[in-house]
Amino acid sequence: MAERINVAVDAMGGDNAPQEVVKGAVEAVCEDKRLKVFLVGQEPAVSEELKKYTYDAERLEIVHASEVIDTGEPPVMAIRTKKDSSIVKCMNMVKEGQCDALVSAGSTGAVLVGGQVIVGRIKGVERPPLAPIIPNIKGVSLLLDCGANVDARPSHLLQFAKIGSIYMESVIGVKNPRVGLVNIGVEEEKGNALTKEAYPLLKNCPEINFVGNVEARDIPMGAADVLVCEAFAGNIVLKMMEGVSSALIAKIKSGMMGSLRSKIGALLVKPALKSTLKDFSTEEYGGAPLLGLNGLVVKTHGSSKAIEIKHSILQCIAFKEQNINEKIKEQIVPGN
Amino acid sequence: MAERINVAVDAMGGDNAPQEVVKGAVEAVCEDKRLKVFLVGQEPAVSEELKKYTYDAERLEIVHASEVIDTGEPPVMAIRTKKDSSIVKCMNMVKEGQCDALVSAGSTGAVLVGGQVIVGRIKGVERPPLAPIIPNIKGVSLLLDCGANVDARPSHLLQFAKIGSIYMESVIGVKNPRVGLVNIGVEEEKGNALTKEAYPLLKNCPEINFVGNVEARDIPMGAADVLVCEAFAGNIVLKMMEGVSSALIAKIKSGMMGSLRSKIGALLVKPALKSTLKDFSTEEYGGAPLLGLNGLVVKTHGSSKAIEIKHSILQCIAFKEQNINEKIKEQIVPGN
Repeated sequence: MAERINVAVDAMGGDNAPQEVVKGAVEAVCEDKRLKVFLVGQEPAVSEELKKYTYDAERLEIVHASEVIDTGEPPVMAIRTKKDSSIVKCMNMVKEGQCDALVSAGSTGAVLVGGQVIVGRIKGVERPPLAPIIPNIKGVSLLLDCGANVDARPSHLLQFAKIGSIYMESVIGVKNPRVGLVNIGVEEEKGNALTKEAYPLLKNCPEINFVGNVEARDIPMGAADVLVCEAFAGNIVLKMMEGVSSALIAKIKSGMMGSLRSKIGALLVKPALKSTLKDFSTEEYGGAPLLGLNGLVVKTHGSSKAIEIKHSILQCIAFKEQNINEKIKEQIVPGN
Repeated sequence: MAERINVAVDAMGGDNAPQEVVKGAVEAVCEDKRLKVFLVGQEPAVSEELKKYTYDAERLEIVHASEVIDTGEPPVMAIRTKKDSSIVKCMNMVKEGQCDALVSAGSTGAVLVGGQVIVGRIKGVERPPLAPIIPNIKGVSLLLDCGANVDARPSHLLQFAKIGSIYMESVIGVKNPRVGLVNIGVEEEKGNALTKEAYPLLKNCPEINFVGNVEARDIPMGAADVLVCEAFAGNIVLKMMEGVSSALIAKIKSGMMGSLRSKIGALLVKPALKSTLKDFSTEEYGGAPLLGLNGLVVKTHGSSKAIEIKHSILQCIAFKEQNINEKIKEQIVPGN
């Protein structure tokens, strides 16, 4: 029998908890027999939701957690004081080895803090990057770091490149992934103090396939598979992608309502448009892993529906089976 | 008679020079009688183009410049050695007061360097920002800085906010423009070292209408009229806007070609789509002014067509008539 993969799921996290979280967990468990999911949250609410579904009860278990961390709470304080919250309980289950991974749609700050403070970094990892998968015209790229720690050092960017390459190759399945440094020009000497120092580190690293600087304009064109930057820049890339897409789609939709001719046209193109936009939505690719920790922590959108929760849980299987953390350890601290 | 506005135009700059530049200059001169334009470039090529048009010869003059600065040339060296280039000649005409402004679609680096080195900064301006106008769902915003000087200091951001507010109010006509600080969260304590230090400076400045931090996601929604950031972040905002728009439009177009039904729909929505996309193109709003210099320097896209050149030249009229530089001087060095 194949090894079992145990995933703790924050049943109280996100705008649609517990309904969509429970639904996504049930779907994941039904789809892959290797999974065991622990739904962590307020028992009455979670079991009420679970009653709606049929599933293999041996592989889906409720773990009661009396408290909930709200999105607005200061993360450090919340992690410290709410010991019986669903997020802290999930983190402890990974820390203690009961689970291989956890998935949460809850407070980003609390997940980032809890991941570092409770689950803990792999020895040698300077800063664990939050690495969302973003769509491009040809497929997807991994963007790291998008976490809460800005003002990174060049050595952090080198680690992001190594860790991101491992994840992209082993979990997403892109062979020899192209690593690009997000910058304001393609020439080696372009950029700010950070990118100028990081460039030679990346160029001289034999473990990665560095393709040079990538301008923001070329990110949506798929110029690299692994996009490396510090978190302030990463946040702008990610949120401009979301913002420009939404604004443009809203403009196009209202523009089409301007005349009878275009209204009829809009009806005809609707299915094609819908499927195109689905490809280009940042919410279609499961959650963002927080990498470099002693276990996998996946942060999904606060607005996650069951499908994103399901994808995020399934993502944990490849992570475990591909021994991602062993590979990270080997590259970050060779010979360790 | 109204005061004459003299504009030097780099006839050799950009991918479509001299044809589109000459055409844009002729159109501007025909549209506004207050203008006098000096077309600076290689006389034979420019006069050959000019022959195609009818115009008031008193208000359109060729100034011969034997050299051309290419886009790939290192800017500092080019400005220093190519004294008879069209860019350097335009810069000198502004410096010596023969012209009020210059417009170039040539090398961005050379325009930025020439602006600072030849035209020179207004006394007290620490760093002249390059300030493109970007579209949003409700109208336009001014984004500054998008120049070549990254790693700005908090005091630079405060100056960008003051200078940008003056331009937005007096040239673009937005009353009491809302100033936003581009950041990774809306709360005051969010961000990197730079934004954390800049926030209280902006908040406590009585001359501007500061509305707080703006996340990248809200930029295309029109969250602020004047967007303040250092140039690395500004470059990412600008180029993500261009890149995501192009990628999404390409995806939508090819998606519509997938079935007969959507092909017919595409034909019907085409005019509406075209006009929507025009509103949202960064190339529809004339050039980006380099502000805080002893004269106006406008950088237009390298791919500029006549319409963008014309708009850029016309923009110089409001700049002069509204005494933008006097207003900047008053705010930057009060009582000077």
